[in-house]
Amino acid sequence: MNILVVFKVLGALILFLSCALLIPIPVALIDGDGSYWPLLMAALVGAFWGGIVLYFCRSAKPDLGHREGFAVVTLGWTVFGLVGALPYYFADATPTLTDAIFESISGFTTTGATIFTEVELLPRSLLLWRALTQWLGGMGIIVLSLAILPMLGVGGMQLFKAEVPGPTADRLSPRIQDTAKLLWGVYVGLTVAEIVLLMLGGVDLFESVCHAFATLATGGFSTRNASVAGFNSAYVDWVITLFMFLAGVNFALHFAWIAGRPLKMFKNEEFRCYAALALIATLVMFFFNWGAVYEGFADNLRYSAFQAVSILTTTGFGTADYELWPFACQILLVLLMFIGGCAGSTGGGAKVSRILLIVKHATVQMWRLIHPRGVRRVKLDGRPVPEEVLQSILGFFALYLACTGGAAIVMAGLGIEPVTAVASVIASIGNIGPGLGGVGPTDNYAALPQVGKMVLAFCMLLGRLELFTVLALLYPGFWRR
Amino acid sequence: MNILVVFKVLGALILFLSCALLIPIPVALIDGDGSYWPLLMAALVGAFWGGIVLYFCRSAKPDLGHREGFAVVTLGWTVFGLVGALPYYFADATPTLTDAIFESISGFTTTGATIFTEVELLPRSLLLWRALTQWLGGMGIIVLSLAILPMLGVGGMQLFKAEVPGPTADRLSPRIQDTAKLLWGVYVGLTVAEIVLLMLGGVDLFESVCHAFATLATGGFSTRNASVAGFNSAYVDWVITLFMFLAGVNFALHFAWIAGRPLKMFKNEEFRCYAALALIATLVMFFFNWGAVYEGFADNLRYSAFQAVSILTTTGFGTADYELWPFACQILLVLLMFIGGCAGSTGGGAKVSRILLIVKHATVQMWRLIHPRGVRRVKLDGRPVPEEVLQSILGFFALYLACTGGAAIVMAGLGIEPVTAVASVIASIGNIGPGLGGVGPTDNYAALPQVGKMVLAFCMLLGRLELFTVLALLYPGFWRR
Repeated sequence: MNILVVFKVLGALILFLSCALLIPIPVALIDGDGSYWPLLMAALVGAFWGGIVLYFCRSAKPDLGHREGFAVVTLGWTVFGLVGALPYYFADATPTLTDAIFESISGFTTTGATIFTEVELLPRSLLLWRALTQWLGGMGIIVLSLAILPMLGVGGMQLFKAEVPGPTADRLSPRIQDTAKLLWGVYVGLTVAEIVLLMLGGVDLFESVCHAFATLATGGFSTRNASVAGFNSAYVDWVITLFMFLAGVNFALHFAWIAGRPLKMFKNEEFRCYAALALIATLVMFFFNWGAVYEGFADNLRYSAFQAVSILTTTGFGTADYELWPFACQILLVLLMFIGGCAGSTGGGAKVSRILLIVKHATVQMWRLIHPRGVRRVKLDGRPVPEEVLQSILGFFALYLACTGGAAIVMAGLGIEPVTAVASVIASIGNIGPGLGGVGPTDNYAALPQVGKMVLAFCMLLGRLELFTVLALLYPGFWRR
Repeated sequence: MNILVVFKVLGALILFLSCALLIPIPVALIDGDGSYWPLLMAALVGAFWGGIVLYFCRSAKPDLGHREGFAVVTLGWTVFGLVGALPYYFADATPTLTDAIFESISGFTTTGATIFTEVELLPRSLLLWRALTQWLGGMGIIVLSLAILPMLGVGGMQLFKAEVPGPTADRLSPRIQDTAKLLWGVYVGLTVAEIVLLMLGGVDLFESVCHAFATLATGGFSTRNASVAGFNSAYVDWVITLFMFLAGVNFALHFAWIAGRPLKMFKNEEFRCYAALALIATLVMFFFNWGAVYEGFADNLRYSAFQAVSILTTTGFGTADYELWPFACQILLVLLMFIGGCAGSTGGGAKVSRILLIVKHATVQMWRLIHPRGVRRVKLDGRPVPEEVLQSILGFFALYLACTGGAAIVMAGLGIEPVTAVASVIASIGNIGPGLGGVGPTDNYAALPQVGKMVLAFCMLLGRLELFTVLALLYPGFWRR
């Protein structure tokens, strides 16, 4: 384990984050609310420590191996969570440091669970920082899931190696930087497009930016107490529904259609499955809500589609209190939380492709029972899926459920009522945000005990970094030579 | 598909069940409560139809292949459920035929979910029939899981081929009948032992028999409204705890220690894991209940151990209202419902060995990430587990969860409150009985809508017959040549 190079990269990441901390300062100065000071202080603390670490590790050999990769990703996200919490803490915006860290990790993991009971009372600069943590987290996730994790072989992500655009058409660019630039171009482009469309709907620049940041990252932080319902506009709802849906798509596919190959998207099995899921979930909710909650066709479709897409993509924006919807809708929403977006998107959950492959695997198992001497393999996009990839995905799935169950017991052990305990863990590990019960769409995470918030923050990291990345560091053999 | 031989076997099974229906008649005659008539009528109906089917299919060629095996098992259990419902229906003991079928399927699948709100008002002959359905179901399960499913290759059960005792020591007897006789000997012996021990504790013969039947089958039907709490005896609680634990052990291991090889049990990894689970679950509940629910050491241990073992083995007997226990206990109990007993026992759930192998698989996946060039395989009892077996188990696990999720949506769609909807499905597919919410330990299944009862009865069959056996019949290619 080349620990020096790990620290070197971490130092560079902290310096980068310190620069990002300067971005909301102009807003603070314009508003004159005094919150430029916490942001600046956080930037200075970051720069100081990042600089020191970088200085002492400057001689590190630049060979990043397998293990170093796991360490950089997990520690990087953790450090971002810690440094990103400083502005909230310095500004006294959160009651405790734990709350600040929770909010920051919730941001960088694009979860969107909040401990703020009154978002509208926060200074705009902090709201921008909050949205920015999600947007930066989303950027990180795209590169992580399309370039880094496939190389590390985590949980079947190697399946998507070929999907990543690079200088050489359909093959993985050996240089992560090139890949990253192309994907980020798409990400920035879609963000700008959403900002423009929201502003055309009468949303002001500041709120358009914040919501576009939170949408593209499938984060879900809003600048309104009532989330997107606060705009009370069908146009805004539909724009955000569209962009949530786009944010849940593999960004390599976005790159393809922007590069003039629009059909590639529809040839992709994961995308077709994802689109079908969004559509079916919308229709099921529409069916159950019909007459029971909404009378008008347009209203019902608008709210059902928004909620289905918001939860499937793990964004977590709200336009309705789905705890008042029929019970079947609630259970369907919880199941959607497990599925999440496409691999290579900013969406969380177990990912559509994994669920799709598990379903195919189960079907093949059934087929084999009836045809004991037959041969049939699991395929994706017409190509057989390597056995190791499938095994890896099945292992991921088992770990995902085991972590959910284990964390739920811990939460309940802290005295939290069972539905809230289970829902908060599902919503955290899936990076959704709102759950059910005490953490439902009209509630927030403020009332949970401090230890519980730390458990959930850990769950967010677990889910966001595809479990293996984090758990590898806790594996007894990891640090041994 | 040799459908004739399937019907021939079904006809023989119905005839066998008709004989079993005569067993409670002496009790009815002694009590003079008039319920001999429904039992006799049910036996005659069964004998009539069984005879007709057998007569018309007498010329069937006796070759039972793979597909015929699936059909016999699934249809056999279904037909038992239907014929076994007749006494309740003819005696007007249940409000509807659906309720009678629910109760009967709950019996034969050893689930123990009941629609009777006042069991103590039922005639003793019907209570005996109710206990007998569980006991016969348990007999069926042992042979199914240790002799039939391994041959059919269902969900990794082929792993237990070598475990089955037979005339030739450790090898699978080619004749299922010999294997069955040996295992049933153990089953009957343990039942008699429990009857004797319960009677020594002052329980009368009738109730001892009924509870021993329900214990060995890990069924959970009681003759008391308050379940085992009705005896209010620490001795009875501990005897039943012991026998529930024994009923959750692979019966091939019981055969080994009775045949003079007591150490074989402790060398068995699944048994060690099962015993550890029972112990840990007891201690965790003991810890949380300490001071919060029970003050005395002995009382706390007695109630905690009983509930942990009752749920882990999927028996479902109750001595306490665990919905009043701390939240962590409740979530732990729900997780235990997924695990269940050992393969080859009468317990339900996903089985300890499957969960154990899934955990090992996930660990190996993690190891492989850190050692990308290393080779390591999943082992059980020191032997590497064949890849196909592991795949089959992972497919089983995925299907188990998919069926649970799907059925929960259907239940919620019928207007049942989410916690009750989810818990009723988990408790049915795992063959436990009591769940949470509206189907908690102090409630019953009477109030559920008729369609919901049929959905749950189907879930019981699904879980009991290890999913694949039932789902194979629904697979489009199954009935094709």
